Amino acid sequence: MKPQKILNISVDCVVFGYDINTKSLNVLLEKRFLATEKESQILVDDYVLTGYHIYEHETLDESAARVLEELTGLTNIYKKQFKAFGDPKRLMDEKDLPWIRNEEFNSRTITIAYYFLLNTEDVKLKNNDHNVKWFPVRKLPELGFDHEQIIKEAYEDLKTKCLSEPIIFELLPDKFTINDVQDAYQSILAIEIDNRNFRKKIISKKYIIPLDEKQVGVSKKPAQLYMFSRDIYEKMFKKNYLISM
Amino acid sequence: MKPQKILNISVDCVVFGYDINTKSLNVLLEKRFLATEKESQILVDDYVLTGYHIYEHETLDESAARVLEELTGLTNIYKKQFKAFGDPKRLMDEKDLPWIRNEEFNSRTITIAYYFLLNTEDVKLKNNDHNVKWFPVRKLPELGFDHEQIIKEAYEDLKTKCLSEPIIFELLPDKFTINDVQDAYQSILAIEIDNRNFRKKIISKKYIIPLDEKQVGVSKKPAQLYMFSRDIYEKMFKKNYLISM
Repeated sequence: MKPQKILNISVDCVVFGYDINTKSLNVLLEKRFLATEKESQILVDDYVLTGYHIYEHETLDESAARVLEELTGLTNIYKKQFKAFGDPKRLMDEKDLPWIRNEEFNSRTITIAYYFLLNTEDVKLKNNDHNVKWFPVRKLPELGFDHEQIIKEAYEDLKTKCLSEPIIFELLPDKFTINDVQDAYQSILAIEIDNRNFRKKIISKKYIIPLDEKQVGVSKKPAQLYMFSRDIYEKMFKKNYLISM
Repeated sequence: MKPQKILNISVDCVVFGYDINTKSLNVLLEKRFLATEKESQILVDDYVLTGYHIYEHETLDESAARVLEELTGLTNIYKKQFKAFGDPKRLMDEKDLPWIRNEEFNSRTITIAYYFLLNTEDVKLKNNDHNVKWFPVRKLPELGFDHEQIIKEAYEDLKTKCLSEPIIFELLPDKFTINDVQDAYQSILAIEIDNRNFRKKIISKKYIIPLDEKQVGVSKKPAQLYMFSRDIYEKMFKKNYLISM
């Protein structure tokens, strides 16, 4: 066996957006379309994650943040580098070949995959740009390359992580009700949570701050609003592990 | 900014071994030594993780497994790819330069880092080979490159993961006492665990199988031995998340 000589390195970004109205965890995907001249034959027509080569002098984190900013205009979004994907055949599926020939990555490409957590309302998609679209993570369209696997593994990592760290709040608006938090956990983990115990547990957390504000514009009795303080969480976390054994 | 052109990709392996006698979590490290002719001046004298370039046609997992096998002779060991490290300056520390000039990786190298979990007794270190040695994870020697950071992040990941998954058993011998499990958690997480609650909780797990065997060769009253069944754990895990909210 020979050491791999020519390599491309990219970052790929799984942008998870939670929609508080539809209670759905979504992924932001880019359309990939390629046809022969005059569109007589469609060669590639599916969706992919947004990714790009890393630049010289750029760390992996900087690279991922740049790709996100170019896509959404957003900076300072929660991100996690969760896995590198490097199967030698990962871009070599039959249906990817026309695309590969079109682009310029016909040598082995290893990608460092990140996921980002935000609220769908944070992203202003341009109306005239149908190339970028939200899809529910449980109803993905046809995907190119190994991106279905990347999304699946990002989602698994997110599910595990949201049981041990309060990252769920990165997916919610700044102000939320306890029901919003419960809905988000239920949607993401696909479970039913006992309402009363959950409310008690969440309210007891020092890093969940009750506000002097209630919901507006709801037909039912307006519920109390809360905020999440990462600051307080981090100070607490330094002292105690969230032991759950 | 220009896309990065010339790149090396390596895997680096953090081999965690738990020593049931000293109750210590250890890391397997390789000596790095370089001196001028006749050893009149020592240029590099520290320790590093074991790593190597990936080969053509090799997946990242295969590459990591190969590096571990070359180092320890072991196959089929629990491994986790936990992070890629790609800071452009990660190999460019002053004290690493003589080594870099000696080896051949003077272009940017991104490494995909794995950790492995085993019991120190599983590894037969050759007596005449002082180049490879166990060090307690809390008493590391001077380390080259960014390997201290890699070990630190591997350890953080291990701590988080052992709260949500029964990976602790990968660090223990096949047969263990409940005290061994408690000692391992206490050592790895640097916490005190309440003895009675812990025992009750562990014994109640379907995947902890009591054996018709007791400890041998101990001075105190021999304790009951148990085994861990990954098989049963995986069947259970498919149905229920280990909800701990």
